[in-house]
Amino acid sequence: MKIVCALFVLAVLPTLCVAAVKTENITYKVGDKTYKGMLAYDDAVKGKRPGILVVHEFWGLNDYAKKRAEKLAELGYVAFAADMYGDGKVTEHPKEAGKMAAEVRMNQEEWLARANAALKILREHPLVDGKKLGGIGYCFGGSTVLNLANSGSDIAAVVSFHGALPIPDEANAKKIKTKILICHGAADSFIKEDTVQKMRGIYDKSGVDYQMVYYGCAVHSFTVPGADSKELPGIRYDANADRRSWAAMQSLFNEAFNKK
Amino acid sequence: MKIVCALFVLAVLPTLCVAAVKTENITYKVGDKTYKGMLAYDDAVKGKRPGILVVHEFWGLNDYAKKRAEKLAELGYVAFAADMYGDGKVTEHPKEAGKMAAEVRMNQEEWLARANAALKILREHPLVDGKKLGGIGYCFGGSTVLNLANSGSDIAAVVSFHGALPIPDEANAKKIKTKILICHGAADSFIKEDTVQKMRGIYDKSGVDYQMVYYGCAVHSFTVPGADSKELPGIRYDANADRRSWAAMQSLFNEAFNKK
Repeated sequence: MKIVCALFVLAVLPTLCVAAVKTENITYKVGDKTYKGMLAYDDAVKGKRPGILVVHEFWGLNDYAKKRAEKLAELGYVAFAADMYGDGKVTEHPKEAGKMAAEVRMNQEEWLARANAALKILREHPLVDGKKLGGIGYCFGGSTVLNLANSGSDIAAVVSFHGALPIPDEANAKKIKTKILICHGAADSFIKEDTVQKMRGIYDKSGVDYQMVYYGCAVHSFTVPGADSKELPGIRYDANADRRSWAAMQSLFNEAFNKK
Repeated sequence: MKIVCALFVLAVLPTLCVAAVKTENITYKVGDKTYKGMLAYDDAVKGKRPGILVVHEFWGLNDYAKKRAEKLAELGYVAFAADMYGDGKVTEHPKEAGKMAAEVRMNQEEWLARANAALKILREHPLVDGKKLGGIGYCFGGSTVLNLANSGSDIAAVVSFHGALPIPDEANAKKIKTKILICHGAADSFIKEDTVQKMRGIYDKSGVDYQMVYYGCAVHSFTVPGADSKELPGIRYDANADRRSWAAMQSLFNEAFNKK
């Protein structure tokens, strides 16, 4: 039995070594403030590849967002999990998280500056094809990547998962160049239907290339395993919606980056 | 050059022969009336496989619906393009088409009987695994497959493309067992938002496994090449939405039928 195990390990080991995802902490500045993000990539992949920005929930850059960056690296992307609060600040207290997110939301210019600073890390990274940039975000991070797209950024494709949905500025919506995918819990009680209608109306009027998916019966945080443990109303993990929305993201990135 | 061509043909020919999609006209009865559908399958595929019902637009069983059945056969399914009007009746005149569809819609029981008769052709076909049934439908056909799902049918998964969206009977919605995918033009002027809200509300309340995708800027008939030639208001082909919705359908069927 020992021999069989040893043979098995010898057979599998090289594969594991080849496909190892590497992570690196990266510290960067926006104005005077220091931010601490995490880069993930598969060092078995050769050459430059698309870079995907990952923006965290309102809790800050926690393990969940980092894990998603690693999963993107497994798919062959370089992923950068941004820090939108500075100093890698995280919390598990909803009130504190709400306050931290609100501070960012208050200043649209600063919000965009932080997102763009993180995107720049990817654009200038030697492993990244700087013309192939994408972004994903969860909850607060969903709004962040949508704001980036709405600003007329050259980011090719963004995906919002249970994001708070910002209403785009109608006067500038024609400048939006990004392919947008909005993955939304159909029973999400945090996002008002009126907001959704306004956002969609402006996108449709302005010829924006967007898709919005309602996942039946799913509520807020549907992609976050263990979300239920916080016992917050209107928050629940949904394995079906998680799996399906991750697949929808892959389809969009495959399309945007001509990947087979 | 001729020799090269001949060699090329000889090399390619067997592949073409192996992957030939076969079609068969099938005549069947509902009550006293005769219906003329078309079955499509790839005779290179071995063994029983899932069967997919294809339901036409309000024009009747025209070449477009038949073409979709052939495309499903190319994917390895047995597809049956149903005839919902009898005698294979088709028209190109919107008024006549509207009248024919309205006649079916008027009688919910008869409507379901015709859909179930077509589904029975698949269920009992020697090439079909009768426990793996799905359905797709366009416009009027979209409502038809949704009605089937809403009736508590054992059809595993249905996809509606720019379908008129029926509001399910709330008292029976808990009995719905089907995975539902609704592919909808976000700028479809034929479907009232109020109808969508009511439908989604009942599905969410009843725990129905559904997804609804809004394709940005797409209007009615977005999957139908040449739809624009009819010069009807609110009708237009959209290549992006067509490609994406077809891919979304494949994902759902792969999931429903455990296909890799």
